[in-house]
Amino acid sequence: MPLFDLPLDQLRGYTSRVTPPADLQTFWDATLNEARTFPLNATFEPVENHLAVVDTFDVTFAGYGGSPIKGWLHLPVNRSAGTPLPVVVQYIGYSGGRGLVNQDTKWAQAGYAHFIMDTRGQGYGGILGETADPHPSAGEVAYAGLMTRGSGSREDYYYRRVYVDAFRAVEAAQSHPGVDPSRVVLAGISQGGGIVVAVAGLVAGRLDGVIAALPDVPFLQDFPRSIDIAARGPYPEIAAFLGRHRDRYEPMLAVLNYFDGVNLARAATARALYSVAQMDDVCPPSTVFASFNAYGSGSAAQKDIEVYRFNNHEGGQEHHWIRQLQYLRELLG
Amino acid sequence: MPLFDLPLDQLRGYTSRVTPPADLQTFWDATLNEARTFPLNATFEPVENHLAVVDTFDVTFAGYGGSPIKGWLHLPVNRSAGTPLPVVVQYIGYSGGRGLVNQDTKWAQAGYAHFIMDTRGQGYGGILGETADPHPSAGEVAYAGLMTRGSGSREDYYYRRVYVDAFRAVEAAQSHPGVDPSRVVLAGISQGGGIVVAVAGLVAGRLDGVIAALPDVPFLQDFPRSIDIAARGPYPEIAAFLGRHRDRYEPMLAVLNYFDGVNLARAATARALYSVAQMDDVCPPSTVFASFNAYGSGSAAQKDIEVYRFNNHEGGQEHHWIRQLQYLRELLG
Amino acid sequence: MPLFDLPLDQLRGYTSRVTPPADLQTFWDATLNEARTFPLNATFEPVENHLAVVDTFDVTFAGYGGSPIKGWLHLPVNRSAGTPLPVVVQYIGYSGGRGLVNQDTKWAQAGYAHFIMDTRGQGYGGILGETADPHPSAGEVAYAGLMTRGSGSREDYYYRRVYVDAFRAVEAAQSHPGVDPSRVVLAGISQGGGIVVAVAGLVAGRLDGVIAALPDVPFLQDFPRSIDIAARGPYPEIAAFLGRHRDRYEPMLAVLNYFDGVNLARAATARALYSVAQMDDVCPPSTVFASFNAYGSGSAAQKDIEVYRFNNHEGGQEHHWIRQLQYLRELLG
Amino acid sequence: MPLFDLPLDQLRGYTSRVTPPADLQTFWDATLNEARTFPLNATFEPVENHLAVVDTFDVTFAGYGGSPIKGWLHLPVNRSAGTPLPVVVQYIGYSGGRGLVNQDTKWAQAGYAHFIMDTRGQGYGGILGETADPHPSAGEVAYAGLMTRGSGSREDYYYRRVYVDAFRAVEAAQSHPGVDPSRVVLAGISQGGGIVVAVAGLVAGRLDGVIAALPDVPFLQDFPRSIDIAARGPYPEIAAFLGRHRDRYEPMLAVLNYFDGVNLARAATARALYSVAQMDDVCPPSTVFASFNAYGSGSAAQKDIEVYRFNNHEGGQEHHWIRQLQYLRELLG
Amino acid sequence: MPLFDLPLDQLRGYTSRVTPPADLQTFWDATLNEARTFPLNATFEPVENHLAVVDTFDVTFAGYGGSPIKGWLHLPVNRSAGTPLPVVVQYIGYSGGRGLVNQDTKWAQAGYAHFIMDTRGQGYGGILGETADPHPSAGEVAYAGLMTRGSGSREDYYYRRVYVDAFRAVEAAQSHPGVDPSRVVLAGISQGGGIVVAVAGLVAGRLDGVIAALPDVPFLQDFPRSIDIAARGPYPEIAAFLGRHRDRYEPMLAVLNYFDGVNLARAATARALYSVAQMDDVCPPSTVFASFNAYGSGSAAQKDIEVYRFNNHEGGQEHHWIRQLQYLRELLG
Amino acid sequence: MPLFDLPLDQLRGYTSRVTPPADLQTFWDATLNEARTFPLNATFEPVENHLAVVDTFDVTFAGYGGSPIKGWLHLPVNRSAGTPLPVVVQYIGYSGGRGLVNQDTKWAQAGYAHFIMDTRGQGYGGILGETADPHPSAGEVAYAGLMTRGSGSREDYYYRRVYVDAFRAVEAAQSHPGVDPSRVVLAGISQGGGIVVAVAGLVAGRLDGVIAALPDVPFLQDFPRSIDIAARGPYPEIAAFLGRHRDRYEPMLAVLNYFDGVNLARAATARALYSVAQMDDVCPPSTVFASFNAYGSGSAAQKDIEVYRFNNHEGGQEHHWIRQLQYLRELLG
Repeated sequence: MPLFDLPLDQLRGYTSRVTPPADLQTFWDATLNEARTFPLNATFEPVENHLAVVDTFDVTFAGYGGSPIKGWLHLPVNRSAGTPLPVVVQYIGYSGGRGLVNQDTKWAQAGYAHFIMDTRGQGYGGILGETADPHPSAGEVAYAGLMTRGSGSREDYYYRRVYVDAFRAVEAAQSHPGVDPSRVVLAGISQGGGIVVAVAGLVAGRLDGVIAALPDVPFLQDFPRSIDIAARGPYPEIAAFLGRHRDRYEPMLAVLNYFDGVNLARAATARALYSVAQMDDVCPPSTVFASFNAYGSGSAAQKDIEVYRFNNHEGGQEHHWIRQLQYLRELLG
Repeated sequence: MPLFDLPLDQLRGYTSRVTPPADLQTFWDATLNEARTFPLNATFEPVENHLAVVDTFDVTFAGYGGSPIKGWLHLPVNRSAGTPLPVVVQYIGYSGGRGLVNQDTKWAQAGYAHFIMDTRGQGYGGILGETADPHPSAGEVAYAGLMTRGSGSREDYYYRRVYVDAFRAVEAAQSHPGVDPSRVVLAGISQGGGIVVAVAGLVAGRLDGVIAALPDVPFLQDFPRSIDIAARGPYPEIAAFLGRHRDRYEPMLAVLNYFDGVNLARAATARALYSVAQMDDVCPPSTVFASFNAYGSGSAAQKDIEVYRFNNHEGGQEHHWIRQLQYLRELLG
Repeated sequence: MPLFDLPLDQLRGYTSRVTPPADLQTFWDATLNEARTFPLNATFEPVENHLAVVDTFDVTFAGYGGSPIKGWLHLPVNRSAGTPLPVVVQYIGYSGGRGLVNQDTKWAQAGYAHFIMDTRGQGYGGILGETADPHPSAGEVAYAGLMTRGSGSREDYYYRRVYVDAFRAVEAAQSHPGVDPSRVVLAGISQGGGIVVAVAGLVAGRLDGVIAALPDVPFLQDFPRSIDIAARGPYPEIAAFLGRHRDRYEPMLAVLNYFDGVNLARAATARALYSVAQMDDVCPPSTVFASFNAYGSGSAAQKDIEVYRFNNHEGGQEHHWIRQLQYLRELLG
Repeated sequence: MPLFDLPLDQLRGYTSRVTPPADLQTFWDATLNEARTFPLNATFEPVENHLAVVDTFDVTFAGYGGSPIKGWLHLPVNRSAGTPLPVVVQYIGYSGGRGLVNQDTKWAQAGYAHFIMDTRGQGYGGILGETADPHPSAGEVAYAGLMTRGSGSREDYYYRRVYVDAFRAVEAAQSHPGVDPSRVVLAGISQGGGIVVAVAGLVAGRLDGVIAALPDVPFLQDFPRSIDIAARGPYPEIAAFLGRHRDRYEPMLAVLNYFDGVNLARAATARALYSVAQMDDVCPPSTVFASFNAYGSGSAAQKDIEVYRFNNHEGGQEHHWIRQLQYLRELLG
Repeated sequence: MPLFDLPLDQLRGYTSRVTPPADLQTFWDATLNEARTFPLNATFEPVENHLAVVDTFDVTFAGYGGSPIKGWLHLPVNRSAGTPLPVVVQYIGYSGGRGLVNQDTKWAQAGYAHFIMDTRGQGYGGILGETADPHPSAGEVAYAGLMTRGSGSREDYYYRRVYVDAFRAVEAAQSHPGVDPSRVVLAGISQGGGIVVAVAGLVAGRLDGVIAALPDVPFLQDFPRSIDIAARGPYPEIAAFLGRHRDRYEPMLAVLNYFDGVNLARAATARALYSVAQMDDVCPPSTVFASFNAYGSGSAAQKDIEVYRFNNHEGGQEHHWIRQLQYLRELLG
Repeated sequence: MPLFDLPLDQLRGYTSRVTPPADLQTFWDATLNEARTFPLNATFEPVENHLAVVDTFDVTFAGYGGSPIKGWLHLPVNRSAGTPLPVVVQYIGYSGGRGLVNQDTKWAQAGYAHFIMDTRGQGYGGILGETADPHPSAGEVAYAGLMTRGSGSREDYYYRRVYVDAFRAVEAAQSHPGVDPSRVVLAGISQGGGIVVAVAGLVAGRLDGVIAALPDVPFLQDFPRSIDIAARGPYPEIAAFLGRHRDRYEPMLAVLNYFDGVNLARAATARALYSVAQMDDVCPPSTVFASFNAYGSGSAAQKDIEVYRFNNHEGGQEHHWIRQLQYLRELLG
């Protein structure tokens, strides 16, 4: 497909018109404090994975509202008993879930603890999930898909629950004895990358141990522009909803503003390695650069971005994974 | 599009391989009895509809589990004060809701009471809705869309709630003083037609007053065949779900069997006017004939079917409405 | 679909490069004078519409060249005998006709006289029509569709006949005793909206009684830009024709210039309520704003425009109808 | 595309259910007699074609109703003065016209007189035309395209005029001194091939000199089956029209029956070389075999058919032309 | 997509009309004998894979004509030094190559030696490859893609070289000291599955050690039917080629007959676990059953097939992998 | 399709950012000198073409590396024995070959010698070819199609061989006694037009006789922009390849730079008639103007360009041919 977004030199300088709501921190303080009133209850059940080199644990922990959130923890079999491992906490792309028990072990193969969080209410699109989204808004009328679930208020918006789950997933990962809680890396592609950005921002000042963020072609960034220009993928769910609910544009933007990675990224302090694809019409490059340029702007966090010039939303794929492996090797020794 | 289903002479004799579960009546007895434990609480608030010839009431009544179900009741302004009118209870096509206050008044224009039921959890696709589906299964992982919501058990399956709502909608319509409860006609297109078939079967022996059913190109009929051959529309949601959940085919069919119009139609006693479109790849003609051929088979109910030879799922449209108007004029005088 | 036209602030100031031909008024004076040499012969035959609240008359009147043009006149049954009603004259979207007898009664439901004009030679696309276009150019070689019929000269161009029919439709509506000729509103969507703009301009100084114009997402505006940027719908018929007839670009523009709403709108004096959809790739928003900005510019006519931000050519639909009902209620009491 | 029609062995034996109307010959006798009441007036104006080896004449002759029909006559420059040449009369595919002056000279290159008939009202689709279809039905409401123009009666149906034009084109070709009137070959692809079949049947007993017919993947054969199974091309225009005009199926078939190649082919006596493509979803192979199997069945005319096994409607293209050249060389020496 | 092939009960009994050429064994004896005249020269270079639990070797060996064929050998790091492992030899789907160094280690994770063969001339479609196809036919005119490369003769046909490479890949795998040569399992999806079938047949009587074959939705089976009915994927490359080269149908089938899995499968003796997807329009289910039903028919080899009822060519995916892991665990202990 | 490239006034001034490599001339000197070390060996075998007005010769000559390149030479039968004719050397569009013996004789019909060069390795897409591309890079892994064959180095790049073939085709044409070697015209559409531009540049100072160039909607121009904006056709093969081979962008551009028409056109001295289509998304108009604006800039060669305003890649078609015939008539008398 032809290039459709800004040219690269303008992308590098692109700043979103998104500005954080005045009470952004208050909102998230209240949200996360409430979440922490539920005991984490992280459990790790060993499970048959049919593999010889990786051990897998079926994870459950209390997410938003105390709901049970599923996950996998993969550990290399040949780990040293007394030496906890750095952990990669991985979030999943839109529509997917944690998958089958041995479907993705890649960070464990690389010698890390590998924690995969199931995304509530998803897992219908190609990779199975098992975590429900038990919230009143689930039964409300929304556009098909999850992007507009509960979008009537910031309190009910679907991603409030997801971000809380994701924050607590870090705590759950840190609670396992095989994991070194001071060396947490966040990773994810598309929606997973968007959650990485959000959590990287939310942990700042609230939770220690996150030392790096690896958002790939992240979704959930720069909503006002994304919903105007994304041609495929989940952003158009919002546009379609607004095409039906013609009076909801401003209120919708006001709600989304609390969840926009561009706003949350500013507070981040962990170093970051982004990726962006210049022909990506699902997560347009300008919206990714909007996030990258905002990321850690308070703390001058170290950050890099890998540009994939002729790729659509598939981004860097297996090539970028090797790039990340090298990046982590440097970081974690 | 080319003809793809059986030729017309075979359609006329086609019988589905669907057979009712042994406890079909028991299941629905229990379900409807439980539903009736909730007071109906039907309310009719007059509302501004900007029209001069139709009065509109904003309806709420208790559906499945007592949940508030919305609707509209339209009455012709020039009705006679003391003479209650026959009522057409209308169900809506998949993805739609009751719409705006004056969006569809067609049966009221024809001089009938016109009751439109909102479909819980729908109203996202083109015609707005306002009725939530507050059930735990709403937050579960399912295929995008509603066809597989709660499909893990007959108790939780989404259409159990919808059919109950629809049954109670008849009672709600009957409860209005402007309505003659002994002259209820059920009407609907596609999903609306499927609900018509279901309610026509469910009222038999349980609720008096339904004297005619007008299912147009009805959906929700002959599931085993529908999910194999429908190329577009909501049936493929089930096929796609089964493509992911490869072990759910038999259990899914077992659940759907309680909701298949082919099974429910048998008990119907009201006369019926079906329509079918011979090039319909959303609700294939064989599945509609399966329903028609089963309809009222116990009671030899009077039934007719209008065949639209070169139409896809749009069926007879405005032409069929006139056909129905004439049919009702004959029936109701 | 992504935004593809100018941003909203530029749309609000956008002026078309279209400028009226010097003899625009002369051309239309001659055209309309000639049309009026044919007696109007408006007849209104009562017809069975199967409705209880609306009376319908089968209309015929002499349009361009004296050809019989069909229409419907709907009147509320509960009208006051001696009080003529304001009338809404409605024109139809491209490919459609007047439809079946009871297919669209919406303005009559609202208490107005509702006059629907059939569009000559159309009615093949989804809503039936019954009015022929008996002109030599009908048999000429043109691109499939009507946009290029007779486009070899301004005299023979198809829309010359349509605009004349539409002008005379106002006169026909005014001639019915149930109609108040001093309170005529013009309404229409897409092509219907384009005809509204044209007639609003043409009546100025030539016919009294038109007090409001309601063009929705109007077609037939700013041809030079429309044929360059519209991706779907009828404008591309012209582009495709010019792709075949490579020497016809300038002559075609010269002909279209006599029919471009941007030119005709200038003379309008009736107040106007436009609608525009910002993701409309059939009638791109800039071309609608070109018309709106030109509308009534001579007389400083009162005008408003409703912008539908996330809609394609469907525009405001049922929401905009309520907007219009409120607008007319204010205007007409 | 996959095979979708009958397998080859069944195709070879396939007989259409079409049976000729009782008055088929009477209808065409009357039609052609009336046509002949107009003087043929064939004129041949030499015209600059920018070529060195072919001379071209701009042809006009009186077709149906005496309307002027255009054409080209190409003659090899190196022809012998006193020796008239056999002529190939070529009809054009749907939507096309005679084209530009030198666009197709292929039969003249092979040493024959090459007569191309423009198709009235066509020439909009890719190859230009210049012949109008000046008939009242041209302005009537029909489906976009020409397949349903005038289909309300056999007298007004568009192809009545085209077949008459095509018949008279043979007479026009025969009237040129450079042409040997006793050696006329008819050729055409798709619609052109359908016209070949029709003319081959119509000339039998009415006009001498046609000695061979070359219908390639002919259109206009076996209408009842074609409109049911053709997925693309012009047959679906009829299906779409019938999807709108739901009461016109039987009357339409009754009209088409007078124009169906299957009926007209029976009377043909000239030898024939057909082609058919087995994956043709525009002119499905069964409908071509229906024509081939009926062709000349009264007179046991010699006939052959070339089957293109893996082709869609493109058929044999340049390969089949060479096959035809060899066939004619054999026939004409 | 709707079911389009035979129903399941007929599939289970379906026999292809393909029959082996008389000299099938002679042809392959000669081919493989000639291949073995080139020294195998299998080399295994340790390579950085950035993983902690798997060791990877960059493999090169001499394939057809002695050409260097690339591959990967993955071994679990925690293997026992002196105990060679059973090996899974994996072939790749059409258009793919061996991929990056750590892109697919799944069988090694399960504790087996995992040998991946690069496919010559492929690796352009999504998974990179590095093996050239240095043969004169590579530069010939063929249809885009590889299905028709060298199809002018059985000697030059592309898959002759691929099958030889694949045969020698087994020998190469067996030559590594970490591999137990008596326990070789062949695995592959689509084209990979087709190669599995071919090699399972070719090793019979020629090479010991292959004890199981795992063809998933195999390609390259039952060509005469496949090229007629497959709607997507590489089979249509052949159909398209034959649509151009209209005289090559019979010769093409004669060549393909030497490479059709249906013919090669008969000789197989290793036990087999197939998979098939019933809505697969790339490798239609009948063609897979044709192979399964022929497989090992001489030796009554033990065989099973997993049917995926609502899947297209994706087949059983991660679910089927677990099925295979369990199958191998049972077989290999 | 909508206009998507620069407006016409900017197109007229558009200059590509492509700049020629320093050693461009050296590279081509070496390449062509090496090519000329192979004897040309042009042979012209008379062949049966089934035509009466054109004689055809089956041509073979030594192209790049001495490989035999096929072609046709068509001469008018009625040529004067002792008067050699000006020759039009025609190159073919992407995927096509020289076609069948009589498939395209158009320049011969106009009285010129008409030399058609087959394109090595092509002829699979619709027009058959018979010339192989026997080079090691043919068997390498590349993207499907030829655009990236051998793109690892300027020496191996596929178009190096094609341009050499095309250069020698001129020499071959000149070697025939019926051809006037001092009056050579180069013609071609799309890829053919791109080759015209290249050869027009390469002959300057190296080969006499080329007096005019007729590049229609030429391909192979302004690669850096083309691969960014072309939406269809062969340019996207390069973009897709770079999407896979993420490290090849700069090296690829460096190689392409030796073959970019924008660089080669500068040296041209023959007069030129270009064509460009303003809605062409295969060879976008800016890339054609980049070439046109660079063409002959050293020598102020006379040049013209015909702009087709509403055409996509079909350009001017039969209309432009007449334009070219008139142009050549003027030039050649």
